[in-house]
Order: sequence, then C-alpha cells, then structure tokens
Amino acid sequence: MGVFFPVSDIVRRLETVRSELDGRTMVLSHGTNIRWLTGFDGSLARLVVGPAHGILITDGRYGERAAADLAAAGLDIDLVVVHSRPEVADAVVAGAARVGPVLAEAEHLSHVAWGDLASRLEIEPAGGIVERLRRIKDAGELARMAAAAEIADRTLGEVAPMLADEPTEADVRDELEYRMRRHGADGPSYDTIVASGPQHAARPHHRTSRRTIVEGDTVIIDVGALVDGYHSDMTRTFVIGAPDARQDEVYALVRAAQAAGLAMVRDGVAAVDVDAACRNVFRNGGLEEWFIHGTGHGVGLDIHEDPFSSPVSTATLATGDVVTVEPGLYRDGFGGVRIEDLVSVNATGCEPLTHLSKDAPCLPSPPTT
Amino acid sequence: MGVFFPVSDIVRRLETVRSELDGRTMVLSHGTNIRWLTGFDGSLARLVVGPAHGILITDGRYGERAAADLAAAGLDIDLVVVHSRPEVADAVVAGAARVGPVLAEAEHLSHVAWGDLASRLEIEPAGGIVERLRRIKDAGELARMAAAAEIADRTLGEVAPMLADEPTEADVRDELEYRMRRHGADGPSYDTIVASGPQHAARPHHRTSRRTIVEGDTVIIDVGALVDGYHSDMTRTFVIGAPDARQDEVYALVRAAQAAGLAMVRDGVAAVDVDAACRNVFRNGGLEEWFIHGTGHGVGLDIHEDPFSSPVSTATLATGDVVTVEPGLYRDGFGGVRIEDLVSVNATGCEPLTHLSKDAPCLPSPPTT
Repeated sequence: MGVFFPVSDIVRRLETVRSELDGRTMVLSHGTNIRWLTGFDGSLARLVVGPAHGILITDGRYGERAAADLAAAGLDIDLVVVHSRPEVADAVVAGAARVGPVLAEAEHLSHVAWGDLASRLEIEPAGGIVERLRRIKDAGELARMAAAAEIADRTLGEVAPMLADEPTEADVRDELEYRMRRHGADGPSYDTIVASGPQHAARPHHRTSRRTIVEGDTVIIDVGALVDGYHSDMTRTFVIGAPDARQDEVYALVRAAQAAGLAMVRDGVAAVDVDAACRNVFRNGGLEEWFIHGTGHGVGLDIHEDPFSSPVSTATLATGDVVTVEPGLYRDGFGGVRIEDLVSVNATGCEPLTHLSKDAPCLPSPPTT
Repeated sequence: MGVFFPVSDIVRRLETVRSELDGRTMVLSHGTNIRWLTGFDGSLARLVVGPAHGILITDGRYGERAAADLAAAGLDIDLVVVHSRPEVADAVVAGAARVGPVLAEAEHLSHVAWGDLASRLEIEPAGGIVERLRRIKDAGELARMAAAAEIADRTLGEVAPMLADEPTEADVRDELEYRMRRHGADGPSYDTIVASGPQHAARPHHRTSRRTIVEGDTVIIDVGALVDGYHSDMTRTFVIGAPDARQDEVYALVRAAQAAGLAMVRDGVAAVDVDAACRNVFRNGGLEEWFIHGTGHGVGLDIHEDPFSSPVSTATLATGDVVTVEPGLYRDGFGGVRIEDLVSVNATGCEPLTHLSKDAPCLPSPPTT
C-alpha cells in the first residue's frame, strides 16, 4: 500500500531525535519508537542512536526484512543480526559504549532488562523524547490514517444493515474485519468490539461474544482499520428496532457530549478541558456516573498513545496530534451508547478523519431524536 | 465457547501460587499471569495475592466484566474499580502493604513502574513463579489448544488449493483468518504469515504483502487459531507447480530435521537437545547456515512462552508443556521451507495437536520426495 501514500521523511526524524539528544547516545527498545525511526517493525529490535552513528540490532528471523526497510528509508544505519538473546545485549553495549551516560527507555524496558543494561553501561531515563516527537503526524502519516478511517467508515456503513438479521456479535465482528481487509486494510486496528444488549453494551471494553443481537438492544461497535502500521479508531452505536424513550434520551446526551468535546479540540487547549467539556454535558443531564472512562487518546503507530484526555491529563493538544473524542454512557440493564470520532488537531479546531454519520447512526432503526 | 470445554480449576491455581509464596504477598501486573489466575483479561489489571486475601484492581471500562469473570471462576477475590492511573497505584499499595517485602514482577513491570512502586512499598523480584506454573497445562487448557489446532488444520486444508489460483499473500491470509473464525476461533492466534517466493519466503517472519503467488514459489504459511484465550501455532510449506530438485532437497531436509526434533521431545529432556537434534540434521545436510532461528517455544495463553528451545536454552521439558517444533531453512533467491507442529509433552514422548499432513503438504503440487 505504501506507494499510494506520501513518503514520510524518516531520515529527518532521525535528525530531529539527534538534535534533541544534544550529543548524547540513546538506546531504544520500544518497538513503535523503533518503527517510527527506521520503518522496521520486527518483534525483536534495539536501536542505538549516537551523534554520528546508528545501529539497528535484530535476530535472524528478521535480518532480510530489516535490511530492506533500512534501504527503503534511505537510512545510514548499520544492521547487526544476532542469533540469541545474550548477543542482543552484547551488541547494544558494544554499539552504545561512550563517555558519559547513555539514555534508555525506562518506561518500556522491564526492571530486569534495565538492571542488566545498567550493570554494563551507565544509563539514565530518556523521558519519552521519541513519544513526544511521534505525536505530531506528517502528511504521509495523516494520509495513512485518513485511508484507514475511510475503510472503517465504508465497512461499517456496509455491515450495519445486517444488525437487523439477528446476527451474533461475533458474526458482525467477523464481517467487519473481513471486509476491512477486502477494502485495503492490512487488518483490524485492534480487536473489534461488538457489544450488544442490556449487559454487554454496558461494558465499554466488552469481549465480543456469540450472543445473538435482538430487537431492543443497544449495540456499540468500536472498529478501526490498520494501514501500513497506522491505526484508525471509531465507535458508533445502534438501536435495534424502535428506540424507547430512555434510549433516545441517552443517545442524545452522548451526541451532545461528543459535540461539546469536539468543539473544544484545538491547538493549545489542555486535554483535561476536552474531557471536562464532555463530562459537563453528562453532569447537566444527571448521568455523569454512567461515564466510566476517559474521553480520548492519541492514535498513530500505536492505537493508544499520547496525548490522553481524562480528568487527570496534563497534556496540551498541539497541531498535528491525531486524537479520539469518545464519550459514552453505560448502565447494566440498559446497555450503553458511545460515539467516537478520530480527528486531527489544528490551529483553529480539528479536522475529522471519521465521516460516518452520527445523525442517523441507528441503522436499521435510527432513534427518533 | 467455554461451556464446551472442561472447566479449569482456577481456584486451585490460586492456592498453588499461595503455597509457593509461603506467607508472602505478591503484586501481579502481567496480563497473561492475571488472566491465568482469575479468568479476567482486561488490558488494565493488577492482582494482589496475599496469604489470606486477594484483590483485583481494574478501571471503569472493565468493572462489569471483571466482576463476571471472578464470579464465573468462583474466586474469593475483592474487586476494586478505579478511575485513573494514580488510583491504580494507590489501590495496589493499600492492598499489598504488609510487614516484610512484597514480591513483584520485575520481568514485566517497566523500570519506571518498578521505581514508583518501590518508592511506596518494599518490593523484591518474584522471579517467574507464575510463568513456571503456567507451563503445565490442565485438561481444560489442553482441550482449548487442541480445538484451536484443529481449526487451523481444517482451515489450512481448505484454503491450500487456492494457492494454485495466483492469489496475493494477503488474499490467502484473509481467507485463512475469516474461515478460522467461521470454524469457531475467536480470531487468529497471531498475524498469519504468508511468505512466498524467492525473497519473502526467505524471511522467517515475513510481513504478509500483496505479492502475487506464482508457479515455482515456495510458500510458507504460519497460522494459528485462538480459542478462549489459548493459541495454536503451526507452519506448512507449499511449492507451486512441480518442485525442482533444490526444493525437493530442502523440503526433505527440513522434514527430516523436524522429525528428529519431535523424536527428542519428552519429559526430562533439555530443550537445548531438541534444538541440537534439528541442527544436526541441517549440519549433516550442509545447510546449517540456512537455519537462522531457534527450534521452538512454549504456547498457551501467550503465543510465545516458556520453555524456549534454542542453542542457549536452559529449560528442561516437562509433562504438560505444550511446545512447537519448527525448524526451517531460508535463503534469499531460493525462498524457504519451515515445518511446525504443536505438541504436548508427556513421559514417553509427545502427542501432536497439529494433524495436517506433512507427507504431502505441497498442495497443489506435492514435492516428489
């Protein structure tokens, strides 16, 4: 798929990281950070970035692929292919040994792995340098995420009518995931959630089951596509048959909360304020207790990444962030409603990547609100 | 699906862990270990296991589901549902605080998370207590893994003939993953690998692409099913059209190496000796350099878990282990061949969970060997 999208300037990313390192050397172990910096996504990788050198370390399963990825990115990085776990550490130490401390990813290395490295190298925490840079998406990344969102839109639009035919939750999930791939996705962005009825839809992260979807159910469908490593993420809620007054009321409240959250998204706004905007609508509607999770998160090479939006967030939104806004209300016995869009942040507001209708989302039976 | 399988005695697992703890308290953070001990698999969980108490901590997204899982398992464990990350740590500290050190999972907690916990609680590494116990599968676990392996067998048997129709690698993967679900899997066990032709099949962990599969290709298909949290794992290699002499030779060598590895698997055998058995066959055949990965790994709730079988393994196989035996040969320009079965270890040898033929695996065109 990559050839259809603008090429990301991976060489420039490496330069940017180097300028942040200010002459120091960093050892990376977090797969997503390494992929962002090299294009390589094998399950075993270490990357050493020094002021004038770079070394990618992987094992025999991935040697050919890593060489191809480095060449495609045009990176002047040496490749070291090892054949056992102990050799990984040896290669890192050999590649990183410098005067003065080396930065390492204290949030991603296990305590044991950190201790092993610290016994052979003077290290200190890097403090999320790469995570911070990864937040801001370039044109190539935005194009992939827009394509992923469009595939999910199209697929859910096609599959929604089958909800009227009493499928199981798993049937709906299977159809969604199969069709997303037919439409060009590399796969689902995460385990598709199909949560139906009074109990399952009351669980924001329900494990999709073989329950049959029946009239009267609220059905929450949380689905995204993966395109060249980049994720999309959206949620729509459906009511099967004519919605009752309570379903209409809850749907309208979530719709209003989500609109309030979206209206708040803009460069320079505190993520906690986006959460508060949604939460206020629920408070005014008397259902704040039904809102049992945060309002959103960043999306990119990871399905959940900085910035997060919740009552305890400290992040500030910035142009180039791609985030979800996804308030929801849940109650055992009632079910639940969640509406989620993926949007990119800019100076004056945000641009939706998700375009599927929310005004008449309740195919086969829209609520009357 | 659960109702069709023997019920695992989760209460007994907790008792076994308690007896290993010998009066101490342990804080678990690794999702797979927590799932094995409680049945709960939400993405955010902590479990405190003390001599006479247990506390499961999760957040609002998962409260309902966690309560249902604990009830289903018949566990006398308190559930604490929090609403922010800081509250997770507070709940752990409140639940774990005891006289003397508390055990924590140094292999799974990040260095930062370990430091945070250590600043509030006297902790020391648990050293893989639960991973060791998880190796030995009970009847319920074996039944799920056998079902998963059977689904993968059946699906690959159905899909293999389409290799003759010049599909893309992605087409084959999509069909496999869709049909596994139709046959009762909860999903694929991992990203299905379809690696074809002189370059892609030369990469043991190729990223499935949109390359068209053509006559003369070797095609490695590495596929597994997921059933109620348990994984299967197998690989078969196909040749498209009449195999040439080199393809026949390499296939026969891998077949012989895999047979040698399987013949070595038995309770009490060192995992390194299983690897050596395969490696010896390749050495005798003059192609040892083409074998660029380890011979196998344990499988269960994780797709890769203890015991691993490679030249540096220190593990000893035991009755109840479920492991892969998967030697392969790879060469850029040639492609590759890998054959992998999933087997359960017993006192006299091993029992295959994979049953798909290896003698005539090269549908649509078996090699002539």
